[in-house]
Amino acid sequence: MLLPALVDHADHNDDWVVFIGSSALVAAVCALVAVATRGERIVMTQRLGFLLVTCVWLTASVVGALPLYLSGLGITFETAVYEAVSGVTTTGGTALTGLDSMPRGVLLWRSLLQWLGGIGLVAMMVLILPQLRGGGQSLFQLESSDRSDKLLPRFSQLASALVWVYGGLTFACAAAYYLAGMGLFDAVNHAMTTVTTAGFSTHDASLGRYGTPAILLVAILFMTLGALPAVLYIRIFLPRSFQRWSDPQVLVFLAICLVFGLALSAVRYFLEGVAAGTALLTGFFNLISLITTTGFSTQDYMLWPNAALGILLPALFIGGCAGSTAGGFKVNRLVILFSLVSANFRRLLRPHAVERLKYGRIDITPAMIETLMIFITLYLVLVVAGTIAMTMLGVDFLSAFSGSLSAVGNVGPGFGPLIGPAGNFSALPDGALWVLSFLMLVGRLEIVTVLILLSPDFWRDR
Amino acid sequence: MLLPALVDHADHNDDWVVFIGSSALVAAVCALVAVATRGERIVMTQRLGFLLVTCVWLTASVVGALPLYLSGLGITFETAVYEAVSGVTTTGGTALTGLDSMPRGVLLWRSLLQWLGGIGLVAMMVLILPQLRGGGQSLFQLESSDRSDKLLPRFSQLASALVWVYGGLTFACAAAYYLAGMGLFDAVNHAMTTVTTAGFSTHDASLGRYGTPAILLVAILFMTLGALPAVLYIRIFLPRSFQRWSDPQVLVFLAICLVFGLALSAVRYFLEGVAAGTALLTGFFNLISLITTTGFSTQDYMLWPNAALGILLPALFIGGCAGSTAGGFKVNRLVILFSLVSANFRRLLRPHAVERLKYGRIDITPAMIETLMIFITLYLVLVVAGTIAMTMLGVDFLSAFSGSLSAVGNVGPGFGPLIGPAGNFSALPDGALWVLSFLMLVGRLEIVTVLILLSPDFWRDR
Repeated sequence: MLLPALVDHADHNDDWVVFIGSSALVAAVCALVAVATRGERIVMTQRLGFLLVTCVWLTASVVGALPLYLSGLGITFETAVYEAVSGVTTTGGTALTGLDSMPRGVLLWRSLLQWLGGIGLVAMMVLILPQLRGGGQSLFQLESSDRSDKLLPRFSQLASALVWVYGGLTFACAAAYYLAGMGLFDAVNHAMTTVTTAGFSTHDASLGRYGTPAILLVAILFMTLGALPAVLYIRIFLPRSFQRWSDPQVLVFLAICLVFGLALSAVRYFLEGVAAGTALLTGFFNLISLITTTGFSTQDYMLWPNAALGILLPALFIGGCAGSTAGGFKVNRLVILFSLVSANFRRLLRPHAVERLKYGRIDITPAMIETLMIFITLYLVLVVAGTIAMTMLGVDFLSAFSGSLSAVGNVGPGFGPLIGPAGNFSALPDGALWVLSFLMLVGRLEIVTVLILLSPDFWRDR
Repeated sequence: MLLPALVDHADHNDDWVVFIGSSALVAAVCALVAVATRGERIVMTQRLGFLLVTCVWLTASVVGALPLYLSGLGITFETAVYEAVSGVTTTGGTALTGLDSMPRGVLLWRSLLQWLGGIGLVAMMVLILPQLRGGGQSLFQLESSDRSDKLLPRFSQLASALVWVYGGLTFACAAAYYLAGMGLFDAVNHAMTTVTTAGFSTHDASLGRYGTPAILLVAILFMTLGALPAVLYIRIFLPRSFQRWSDPQVLVFLAICLVFGLALSAVRYFLEGVAAGTALLTGFFNLISLITTTGFSTQDYMLWPNAALGILLPALFIGGCAGSTAGGFKVNRLVILFSLVSANFRRLLRPHAVERLKYGRIDITPAMIETLMIFITLYLVLVVAGTIAMTMLGVDFLSAFSGSLSAVGNVGPGFGPLIGPAGNFSALPDGALWVLSFLMLVGRLEIVTVLILLSPDFWRDR
């Protein structure tokens, strides 16, 4: 909070007091908690792990909302919480309007929330989630690239590698944006929200404010890099064993982007009659923006031919690679599903063949399949429940459905006039913002980690 | 085809020639095939089983389309095929308009297609599908209530029991419709399409033509009865072992209907201000009509508050009980998914507890979970692919998505002005009718039985 305070102070904006005050308040509460729990020994259990993960993100959301609510923006508490949750979960849907004329401290705070949220998320995935075990094996074995544990056995080493990786990516991205013609402040802010596939912008028109081919290409490149597993980069620090590492999801993800990007460009070129260069640029930009769950926009794809929405529907839930800041269903799960289906087809035709299912070098066990199916079930239940809840609050079906899908996958925009690329989440009723905030948090934390807290069994003494 | 010919002849309608001619053509082709394959010994293999299932339904579709195309209706071939597929798959979406003034032979033919399609489907489920095995166990163990094999070991016994059951239900339903004030011809036709949860009507306005509470109550009752497993009724012929039979899906299905029906009624009562009686009647009728995958309509739920569509979304894919004529995801799969989730939650909290998962009296094996996951995957892939294909043909997103969901689940109507309860599938482009016909067939045949034919491996000699 001291960084935005500095910026606001330099801009002679009174909001610097809010940031200083908020930071003092948070520091005071932290100090009190530290004193109150001094001398307690932490016994790390499975239950504490689940509780910890959720509480960290809840706390981050409240802390993130504090300066937004107290600042001179004059927004409701719901809006502040929604904005902060959308920030720390790297979702990127915004309920604020008038970004262009907003104090730079607030804008920087939003970008920082996403940057820290993104790095924190990857840290959680590689450090904490592999420790949560169910049925004798890691609950998130596939989700969290547990190979990295073996590569970098020490938490501190891994944590500093992560900071270097995201720091480096952000620096490179900011430099590229700056060279492509963006102002320095905008370049830094957009870089922070691009490499974490998050999507907050400093302008109401998002990247549409610039829309030059150079800037869009930089965005396409770094959104894609951000959606690849962090382990890919961490390995740069350990080049010796590079040959041994392989993750099938990376190539599949790039292939999916290529196919759907070309399809979307073709729709614009053939059905809408847009020039080939523009069709390719805008087709790939919008596809990559949704599938990496970033959510930047340049144009209103609601005005494109119907086929555009059809092609963007899978992009709205596939998501990026596991072990990155991207949300959604994640490509490694997709790869496993399809190898299951094809293995099953082969087995139906050759009942006596024996086949071991593998994901890269890992054997796919029945326990993993069960975990995967539970994830799919809960994903669908969340989307349907979110749709019902939002329509109950008066939101139209298309916005409710695509908004829920987008929130659970931490994408950002959805379909329809309210929450499409030209819309703004401030158009939703307050209740719907609460629903979306819940969905974003649950989706971000791999669903089961949060939903298990809702089971009465969790709170029973034993 | 001779029945519609008789009716048309009695009505002095020239279309009776079409039905006689079609039946002669079909008889001739059948005779030729029988002669050509005379003396061949049938070696029943796994592959032949898959091929047989799909071919029977494809043949039924073509045979069903023949008199519709040749009759005086003047419809395109696409429309005739769509109508016949919608018939034999008991989907019930219609692409014909002007039903009220249509020859009664054609109307009866449509109802007969659904009635025979429904009975044939249940016969396939209990007779053929359990024979298809993959990985050492029946591929459709759960889908097909294989317990009935043990109850009635003989095919002929089972087949005649099925005819008695559906004949009895149809008779009771027709009598009830008649007593509730429907004309005899309408009562018989609607009875045939009600108990098979199919949904063709003899009027453009569907049951909205009548809309009296008595008729709606009869429809609600018999749609629900039609969505319960056929084994439930077959057991009437074997009362001795009744105590041993239990199927968890029946009570769960009824509970789902109750909860969602009340929710939909509440939406109409509280948000729309409709009288309590009307709200309950129309709420339950429309919910049951969609969730049993029947698809009758009385009113345009697109005009109800937004929340109605939210509540109807799950109804559009949950479907009825396995082993009935209802389509959709099916309730037994839902029960298994939820017992998996809750068992997993318990195991996460008590890692050392050992628990055997059961569905009724059946152990849930890893192979079953795998089969279930493959089904979910392919279901979602079909819906998404159907949505993309239909938007590519120019259909709007809401119609494309809800239409695909509705077709795969063999429901009938979807959401939106084109294919909602007030719409008609004739408004869709011809290409979209082909897409929907494919989805209906694949969905009706439990997906994997058809899609495996698309795998090149299937056609390889071995």
